[in-house]
Amino acid sequence: MAVGLKEPTALLPVGGVRLGAAAAGIRYQGRDDLVLMELQAGTGCAAVFTRNAFCAAPVTVARLHLAAAAPRYLLINSGNANAGTGDEGIASAIACCREVSALADCDIRAVLPFSTGVIGEPLPVHRLREGIPKAMHALAPDGWLRAARAIMTTDTVPKGASRRTSVRGGAFTVTGIAKGAGMIRPDMATMLAFLATDAGVTPPVLDRCLASAVESSFNRISVDGDTSTNDACVLVATGASGAPAIESLDHPGYETLRKAVAAVCTELAHAIVRDGEGATRFITVEVSEGATTEECLQVAYTIAHSPLVKTACFAGDPNWGRILAAVGRASLDSLDIERVRIHLDDVCIVEDGGRSPGYAEELGRGVMKQPEFAIRVALGRGQEHASVWTTDLSYDYVRINAEYRS
Amino acid sequence: MAVGLKEPTALLPVGGVRLGAAAAGIRYQGRDDLVLMELQAGTGCAAVFTRNAFCAAPVTVARLHLAAAAPRYLLINSGNANAGTGDEGIASAIACCREVSALADCDIRAVLPFSTGVIGEPLPVHRLREGIPKAMHALAPDGWLRAARAIMTTDTVPKGASRRTSVRGGAFTVTGIAKGAGMIRPDMATMLAFLATDAGVTPPVLDRCLASAVESSFNRISVDGDTSTNDACVLVATGASGAPAIESLDHPGYETLRKAVAAVCTELAHAIVRDGEGATRFITVEVSEGATTEECLQVAYTIAHSPLVKTACFAGDPNWGRILAAVGRASLDSLDIERVRIHLDDVCIVEDGGRSPGYAEELGRGVMKQPEFAIRVALGRGQEHASVWTTDLSYDYVRINAEYRS
Repeated sequence: MAVGLKEPTALLPVGGVRLGAAAAGIRYQGRDDLVLMELQAGTGCAAVFTRNAFCAAPVTVARLHLAAAAPRYLLINSGNANAGTGDEGIASAIACCREVSALADCDIRAVLPFSTGVIGEPLPVHRLREGIPKAMHALAPDGWLRAARAIMTTDTVPKGASRRTSVRGGAFTVTGIAKGAGMIRPDMATMLAFLATDAGVTPPVLDRCLASAVESSFNRISVDGDTSTNDACVLVATGASGAPAIESLDHPGYETLRKAVAAVCTELAHAIVRDGEGATRFITVEVSEGATTEECLQVAYTIAHSPLVKTACFAGDPNWGRILAAVGRASLDSLDIERVRIHLDDVCIVEDGGRSPGYAEELGRGVMKQPEFAIRVALGRGQEHASVWTTDLSYDYVRINAEYRS
Repeated sequence: MAVGLKEPTALLPVGGVRLGAAAAGIRYQGRDDLVLMELQAGTGCAAVFTRNAFCAAPVTVARLHLAAAAPRYLLINSGNANAGTGDEGIASAIACCREVSALADCDIRAVLPFSTGVIGEPLPVHRLREGIPKAMHALAPDGWLRAARAIMTTDTVPKGASRRTSVRGGAFTVTGIAKGAGMIRPDMATMLAFLATDAGVTPPVLDRCLASAVESSFNRISVDGDTSTNDACVLVATGASGAPAIESLDHPGYETLRKAVAAVCTELAHAIVRDGEGATRFITVEVSEGATTEECLQVAYTIAHSPLVKTACFAGDPNWGRILAAVGRASLDSLDIERVRIHLDDVCIVEDGGRSPGYAEELGRGVMKQPEFAIRVALGRGQEHASVWTTDLSYDYVRINAEYRS
């Protein structure tokens, strides 16, 4: 069902990073569900986590560990979110980290745990314990694609992207994998993304680079960027490229790195939307001429979250009144509807407070029957703009979410 | 499909009010789609309208007319919302009012127009003009049920409720009808409600009475109470009962009236949810122990609007982690998750930050397989509480909204 999404073919290895996967039988049978990502000593790490008050146990533990030590291993499991599991869940996450640290002979705080899957079930620690040595044994520089497959839950396609780019003094690689297929609406499911570069980057610069890339990618497929109990996005920088370390935002390599990281994040974010549960269309909602970026996003999300707009998109039906109604209820102060213009791709549907004189149903239908199109709103009250990406709402969305556990 | 909802059998006439319906062929064939409601001279009128910036032409005209004159006629059509129709839409609404005023020989401003149906299509004024004399000819005190049928769009059951109550010096009746079947989420469709009482009530008291009743009923099935382009709720008071006029909030009859109006509004609001598009369950979301009513509502709406919670309800699957995740992302400041308790009816599912020790899947499934149940959240941080009513999200919801026009 994924819209215009193919399995990645060429995920470039990143110097200083090895990945191993294993079938631990956590929930799924006959497939990998456990990933270990090994980082060479001296690797820098930036991460952003969910801001959900009920954050999952692995998020709590990963935050604590990250604050205390430089990570050497990321341990990721699918099939069980270890969320809503209370103190027992914390203990389970720590037990799994301990297993890795014992095998690798490293500080337990150098292991970061990540989980995705059903909420509220106890994590089967014994299965992870059995799987961890197998994943460690499988560690290899070219383990990215297998890892991308192992972290899938309702995803139908593994998600990964790479960029290779030149900087003065060398070149570096950025590769990332992600999982998430429930981002039709931001609370649908866990989104996990793991990116690595062989660039050398100092911690504050790496933090800034990740924050900037996430803001324009993963946070634009989500109302808050913070809504699942388990969401996490990690960027590590090993320095293995040998290119000069990027130590400030003014460094000539920073902008190159930032763009490469943002490109990988955007490709992964789009992949998550394209693989959205039940998705039959990939829709860009562009809002322009706003007074602020925030109000552009407010309008864009109101459209992107409207079940009425989404079902009309599923039907390929240019029922544009639903788009207009969504703009109208986005709570913008003193919006002048006479100045608002709405296009479907390049077809103008609304202007001067009503239907465009040149609009005809066939034109709108021609756009909305496509697997990919844009809903474009010009607010006529400023210079700012913002885009978000979303999908339609289909029968299969309901089926997937009504049957996810049953 | 409506959940526990039957056609009303006994809608009590209200002295001073007559209703007539007609088949004008506005969009539907072979059914009434036009209603005229006649109010005797001296009738008071209170109304609340959508706050959507793209409010429909009839809303604009009704607001203007209501500010200028005492209404004698309400003209309501289904099949066409006359929204997103610009200046032409305003002219169309006024033309229809003029037709009524000419036939009735009254001030055009004494006619309030209301429309519901597809957005963005020109209102076929000639069809309304042809239907208006028929509706006027049909005017009768017992026209309520026929009127309730005529204003339906995707509703499957006509909605009406009556109360008869005694006050010192007499007795009075409150009868109301409503339409709306898209209130699974507040932006789904137009909600229209028309209530009348034969009590005599002065305008400020009537306004207050309606605002209070709407707040605890229609505004609790909707995130903003203001989201469609056409939403309207009208309460008229004819004074025909002969009971002493209610001239202040301290008047002994006020509380009696307020309760009767609130009871009718609540019954109609519940009917709208029960007839929610594709609804298979009627769900009460109760949030208690909040610091403020607002934060209780914030949590309640986050749950009620979560597609994940709604699809789990459709499946009858106690996937309570989705409820917990919704509570966690409701953006309450410094929510202490250790104090949050969540029940399904009387089954405790979450306490002390995780799954309740006494919880078993069968217990949760037993509750969620019922056509009606409550999701109850205690926040453990105050004394306030609030409830909202919602439905599940089913295949039929998608079908209805994907096929509404096609």
